[in-house]
Amino acid sequence: MPDDNWSPVGVRGVFGRSPIVLACEHASRHIPVELNNLGLDEAARISHAAWDPGALHVAERLSDLLKAPLIFGGVSRLVYDCNRPPEASDCIPARSEIFEIPGNAALTDQEKDRRFAIVHEPFHTTLANAITQQQRALAEPVVLVTVHSFTPVYHGERRSVEIGYLYDTRSDLSEAACTTEQSKGRYSAALNEPYGPGDGVTYTLRKHAEVLGLSSTMIEIRNDLILTQEAAHSMASHLAGVLRTALASLSRSQEGRSTS
Amino acid sequence: MPDDNWSPVGVRGVFGRSPIVLACEHASRHIPVELNNLGLDEAARISHAAWDPGALHVAERLSDLLKAPLIFGGVSRLVYDCNRPPEASDCIPARSEIFEIPGNAALTDQEKDRRFAIVHEPFHTTLANAITQQQRALAEPVVLVTVHSFTPVYHGERRSVEIGYLYDTRSDLSEAACTTEQSKGRYSAALNEPYGPGDGVTYTLRKHAEVLGLSSTMIEIRNDLILTQEAAHSMASHLAGVLRTALASLSRSQEGRSTS
Repeated sequence: MPDDNWSPVGVRGVFGRSPIVLACEHASRHIPVELNNLGLDEAARISHAAWDPGALHVAERLSDLLKAPLIFGGVSRLVYDCNRPPEASDCIPARSEIFEIPGNAALTDQEKDRRFAIVHEPFHTTLANAITQQQRALAEPVVLVTVHSFTPVYHGERRSVEIGYLYDTRSDLSEAACTTEQSKGRYSAALNEPYGPGDGVTYTLRKHAEVLGLSSTMIEIRNDLILTQEAAHSMASHLAGVLRTALASLSRSQEGRSTS
Repeated sequence: MPDDNWSPVGVRGVFGRSPIVLACEHASRHIPVELNNLGLDEAARISHAAWDPGALHVAERLSDLLKAPLIFGGVSRLVYDCNRPPEASDCIPARSEIFEIPGNAALTDQEKDRRFAIVHEPFHTTLANAITQQQRALAEPVVLVTVHSFTPVYHGERRSVEIGYLYDTRSDLSEAACTTEQSKGRYSAALNEPYGPGDGVTYTLRKHAEVLGLSSTMIEIRNDLILTQEAAHSMASHLAGVLRTALASLSRSQEGRSTS
């Protein structure tokens, strides 16, 4: 008999008063038992294809340090990728980098729609509601920060960037964070690296921030920097400082504009 | 620093093919750490005021036995009661039986709305979607069964009923289940006991079944019968048999109507 309770969405610190709302779409590598591991062996199921290793540990500590609401996914992105719209060909990928995913190869429209309805919808309903609540509670502008990790080697190629700040069309928060990184000089940081909006990765930013006119950034951390919980917490302390500085500079430039 | 991940909604067996969809609104007694225990002592926090003891164990085993999707709540009903609409005075109770709840005594409208948005909405979005998906997947009619438990003694009065089958206006499934109970003779079962729709407890049934023309029943189990996981699993085996018999009799009476 299966023993398999899971959740499409987890939360933390949702009664906090930070203007930052955190999201972590790829927090979990859980595959519901009825899906028979999607036909994957263990190597694939624990790999970055299934989730963003370390990202949840970073996001949890960021939530604690910033008193920021965090909304995170509770199931592998191979079941449904919450950073993809239902029309994206890779929202339920049949292949991810080097892995074929047998359990996604021949889905009917109804099976795909069930994955969307049970995984995507609760996650995005909760994230939208958390942002709306924060907007109602605070006088200052709310911003969305999503937390991800990427593999150091992809299709055999080594990636030298350590932290990427990704944006779709509104770049202010990503630029402020990247400028702050450069002044700190601790990590190799870049804008829209190791991939960007052309790769279809800015869905959550568009859906929850850009449409509302909110600033946002997607933080991509090279996962070898956050392999342990301790390393992830250290990264979170670093990023909390970066975000505080970046938000303060955004706030100054907005005040500058409104009084000029 | 708090370590407090939680979820407004949990699921189990949601890829199963049963025409029964299970819901368990009061599955958890978790109170998010920022809410400071709602000002309650431990006796109140573990009591039936905070949750339905044993109900999740029954619902989990029913889900496994019936291959039925189960949607359950992940937070104490004292934070927000998912079996109440936002306009109900007891959706965020300031008093429950013998307990005052200090953390709910002086909430602003915005604080109440945040509880609704973060707790009620993800739960009910997921339940609605699970029912819709089951309707699309199956040719036979879908039914909703909610699983609850009640305290043997309430305001000092001992309750003799052991299992209640509650309905709002559509009684067919509750009546079929109660008739089946009477033929089995194992438990003292009754319709709309120990309370009923006049007490405001049929919100989930109305919202997700009656409006769609679906049969539904709210099973209320006296919690002294399901104090251990073993006892809860034994109750689930009993109820699985009752539900199978009741559904078969509904199905026969519907066929009888359509061919007469």
